[in-house]
Amino acid sequence: MSSTKLTGKAVVGQSGGPTAVINQSLVGVIEEARRQKQITGLLGARHGVRGIINEDFLDLSGLSQSTLEAVAVTPSSALGSTRDKPDRNYCQKIFEAFQKNDVRYFFYIGGNDSADTANIVHQVANEENYDLRVFHIPKTIDNDLRVTDHCPGYGSAAKFVAQALMGDDLDNRSLKGVKIDVIMGRHAGFLTAATILARQHADAGPHLIYVPEAVFDEAKFITDVDRVMKKLGRCIIAVSEGIHDAAGTPITAKMASLHEKDAHGNIQLSGTGALGDFLAELIRSRLGTVEKKLRVRADTFGYLQRSFVGVYSEVDAREARLVGQMAVRHATNDNTDGSVALKRLGNDGSYGVETFVTSLASVARATKSLPAEYLVPDGNDIDESYRSYVAPLVGKLPTVGYLY
Amino acid sequence: MSSTKLTGKAVVGQSGGPTAVINQSLVGVIEEARRQKQITGLLGARHGVRGIINEDFLDLSGLSQSTLEAVAVTPSSALGSTRDKPDRNYCQKIFEAFQKNDVRYFFYIGGNDSADTANIVHQVANEENYDLRVFHIPKTIDNDLRVTDHCPGYGSAAKFVAQALMGDDLDNRSLKGVKIDVIMGRHAGFLTAATILARQHADAGPHLIYVPEAVFDEAKFITDVDRVMKKLGRCIIAVSEGIHDAAGTPITAKMASLHEKDAHGNIQLSGTGALGDFLAELIRSRLGTVEKKLRVRADTFGYLQRSFVGVYSEVDAREARLVGQMAVRHATNDNTDGSVALKRLGNDGSYGVETFVTSLASVARATKSLPAEYLVPDGNDIDESYRSYVAPLVGKLPTVGYLY
Repeated sequence: MSSTKLTGKAVVGQSGGPTAVINQSLVGVIEEARRQKQITGLLGARHGVRGIINEDFLDLSGLSQSTLEAVAVTPSSALGSTRDKPDRNYCQKIFEAFQKNDVRYFFYIGGNDSADTANIVHQVANEENYDLRVFHIPKTIDNDLRVTDHCPGYGSAAKFVAQALMGDDLDNRSLKGVKIDVIMGRHAGFLTAATILARQHADAGPHLIYVPEAVFDEAKFITDVDRVMKKLGRCIIAVSEGIHDAAGTPITAKMASLHEKDAHGNIQLSGTGALGDFLAELIRSRLGTVEKKLRVRADTFGYLQRSFVGVYSEVDAREARLVGQMAVRHATNDNTDGSVALKRLGNDGSYGVETFVTSLASVARATKSLPAEYLVPDGNDIDESYRSYVAPLVGKLPTVGYLY
Repeated sequence: MSSTKLTGKAVVGQSGGPTAVINQSLVGVIEEARRQKQITGLLGARHGVRGIINEDFLDLSGLSQSTLEAVAVTPSSALGSTRDKPDRNYCQKIFEAFQKNDVRYFFYIGGNDSADTANIVHQVANEENYDLRVFHIPKTIDNDLRVTDHCPGYGSAAKFVAQALMGDDLDNRSLKGVKIDVIMGRHAGFLTAATILARQHADAGPHLIYVPEAVFDEAKFITDVDRVMKKLGRCIIAVSEGIHDAAGTPITAKMASLHEKDAHGNIQLSGTGALGDFLAELIRSRLGTVEKKLRVRADTFGYLQRSFVGVYSEVDAREARLVGQMAVRHATNDNTDGSVALKRLGNDGSYGVETFVTSLASVARATKSLPAEYLVPDGNDIDESYRSYVAPLVGKLPTVGYLY
């Protein structure tokens, strides 16, 4: 940490998969940067780190408040995003672009990979004796960042999947059958776990929930579905895209090897309906008969859960704005580096947060899984206690009515 | 038409795929039936016609206004739905259940098949000299009923897909590539056509739109995508599930025959991601190279577009309530039978509707396609004039902001 407060330009960028509120964080940075005299100009890097090394910057200083507020409520990354995962050589180039443009503040909104990039850029600057304040600003619908209680972006995606499952359950009550909903989450089941919020009625689904933190066993799965069908005559299933077998092999990978044997060429495994269709066919073939065809459908929520316009959590939006603002405040006022994390306040039903700074290294690279306390022994559901963790992040859900 | 006004019980049922506002029509029937003294009791048939022949009725007379309003804003069919398509024999059984229960009014909320059922039941009653007033109440997200200007249920589904495409376009601006969105519509492209409402910015998608009313040619499709990619570096494609080739063969059917040759058992063609995945693979194999992998993703909106909780068009909700009310009013006050249709009023930018009665036969069985005036010669887009047809049905969409 440098002892003198730095004066110079700031660069802000957005990285990785978009969220419904990632632009709230961007607007938080823009607003706060304007208030801080040490920041002499604010450049937006288009498409994250790629915009930095290509010096593809937008001047963010002259925007009107109405533009800022319109951007804030717009999902996806207004500056553009990137999937580039910089190595040390790439980070060296980022640093050189900063040096060349007299950049003294770097704010990077993203997940664990973005924190890693920020961390390496920070190390390079240190080695070169170049004073640079670096802040990572958390975002991810996966909610898998370490240290922080939860991640901005998660609450809104959780709200989307909760509303989707509420609707899907009503649909399935009306026309009965088995319905599979595939939800984003390669390694962490937080988003899929949020579907328990859809249970607002005695027989409401999801009736079965499978996350990557539990082993997915096909035979057990069929038994589970059969049991629910015998009890209710219908079954709603929420499943993470990253479910895997006891050996740790993702079910999608097993499908790929099957398909390769068929010599049908490459099968895309993300951004497709393949897993849902595979599970639907599994149920159909094991539980359906020629005489009694089973109605089985699968939907894969895809990008809707991270980018749908008009559905977001107000709490999430507020917190996303806050972490952007606080990153600038800590970098300028406290002259420090790090990542902004959220601490949950209130245990008596009230809810609030405060922010704190954690080191870049503490959130870089590795991620967090759904804690074991929220899993059930059978691996086919989420413990009801998860509701008190997730409900405040989502806020009020629409009310629905029933006739029976 | 009988000359004396009938006194007796009424039965109401819901049929076919749910919509976001089908319960508004149900509540409209309940409210209005209470006002009409000739209706001595209102029975809700659970799961449509099946609930009638099984005499599985809910008494709808004692419900509180708060329950009614909660049900009204709840998507999917609160009474339950059915896919049963009654033949004449089945309709005879419906009639017998009515006769047995002194039912003099029958209100059936559904699409063209439901209108057909209502029509046959009406004919059977006439033949048996049993006085029965029968009304069909229109609903369908497909918007494919004849006579009426548009169908209750369509505006809300159109709003969902418009908001989804707005978000998807923002996502794709942020992380560029080809994105395919598969939208409901086996024979009619109205819902897919509504995606043009997502174009709220110079380069906003969908950049290509394919509906069942135009021939889908794979080679042409690839050329279209290639052209957009060369121009914008990204491409959003909206496609109806029912697209077909020049011979009229659905693309999904062609896929099925491929799969059957693989002897992999039955491939489900609706409620799956198969069409999107097929088109994505087509683009990837034709336009991608080993050196330059193309980012291609596909989402199939599935049931979300008809049952998502919390997103509906207020205009659509109001009109859905209205057609339910008017069916009861016409049946009791005018002592007539038929289907309630909507006539659009106002040509100077204002919008309004009035209802009128059309015969059951005029909406039964056959459906309507997207008029040719809304198609473009190339078959890869929807004419901009469609906006003035669809925008009033959807109402205000969320506003989004851009930085560039």
